[in-house]
Amino acid sequence: MRCYEDFSVGEVVEAGPVLVTAEDIKAFAAQFDPQPMHLDGAAVQNAIVGGLLASGLHVVCLNMRLLVDAFIRDTGSMGSPGVEEVRYLAPVRAGDSLAMRLEVTGLRPSASRADIGFLKFTSEMRNASGTPVMRMTATLIFPRRDAAAATGTA
Amino acid sequence: MRCYEDFSVGEVVEAGPVLVTAEDIKAFAAQFDPQPMHLDGAAVQNAIVGGLLASGLHVVCLNMRLLVDAFIRDTGSMGSPGVEEVRYLAPVRAGDSLAMRLEVTGLRPSASRADIGFLKFTSEMRNASGTPVMRMTATLIFPRRDAAAATGTA
Repeated sequence: MRCYEDFSVGEVVEAGPVLVTAEDIKAFAAQFDPQPMHLDGAAVQNAIVGGLLASGLHVVCLNMRLLVDAFIRDTGSMGSPGVEEVRYLAPVRAGDSLAMRLEVTGLRPSASRADIGFLKFTSEMRNASGTPVMRMTATLIFPRRDAAAATGTA
Repeated sequence: MRCYEDFSVGEVVEAGPVLVTAEDIKAFAAQFDPQPMHLDGAAVQNAIVGGLLASGLHVVCLNMRLLVDAFIRDTGSMGSPGVEEVRYLAPVRAGDSLAMRLEVTGLRPSASRADIGFLKFTSEMRNASGTPVMRMTATLIFPRRDAAAATGTA
């Protein structure tokens, strides 16, 4: 199980693609983001771009799923203190296939706890044309190997 | 329909509460964040805190839903360029009821388009004890009234 010491700045993880259907877009929107542009593209007159568009938060959720499957699984991840930034860069439409490219951008030990460290990453979702549609920077918490070994949790 | 000119810095919107059940937590996790701490609290040994915990992203999604229902609906919202920050502040567990408090923190016209403006807000989700569990800052795009009237979209 990977601990804080097992990661390096510059490590790249690629995952996907995941297909986004109209049904996916509308189901997510109905639950969490029921704006007309995400529910029924034909009804929308006032959006920046027309047609049925995936919620930006839906794209973040799809990125999270790829992140868990391709990166967090089989690590000692202990959660996250938060997200530094999310940028919505291009529309996501029904039929788009999105692939993730993640890069580890920072590693720092906790100042207050000897047993954990923080990993910062930037993750981008790109459509089949290679156009980035969403980019986010966030932080994950990992156990430090020595501390984990000492307490028998790794 | 509210346009950019209709908002003021300092405007506060409160919404909710929304109950979070164990089924909600597990269903969200199964789809978007299948980490053990969100799927089966009993299995978790290595989290910062023990037990079944809602995914932080789930809490962001619940905030989004309250935001749409209580604030974005009946406005001319044209989407969002992104999220400035998300902080996960305290665990969310099955049975928690979360209420939203949003405050408009900034308004600025677009430098490149005369017909839109940007509204920045900070939104906090609090549990029944009043403890903040998540705080986010994000931006929304609204039409400017003069431009909207000129093009007949408001």
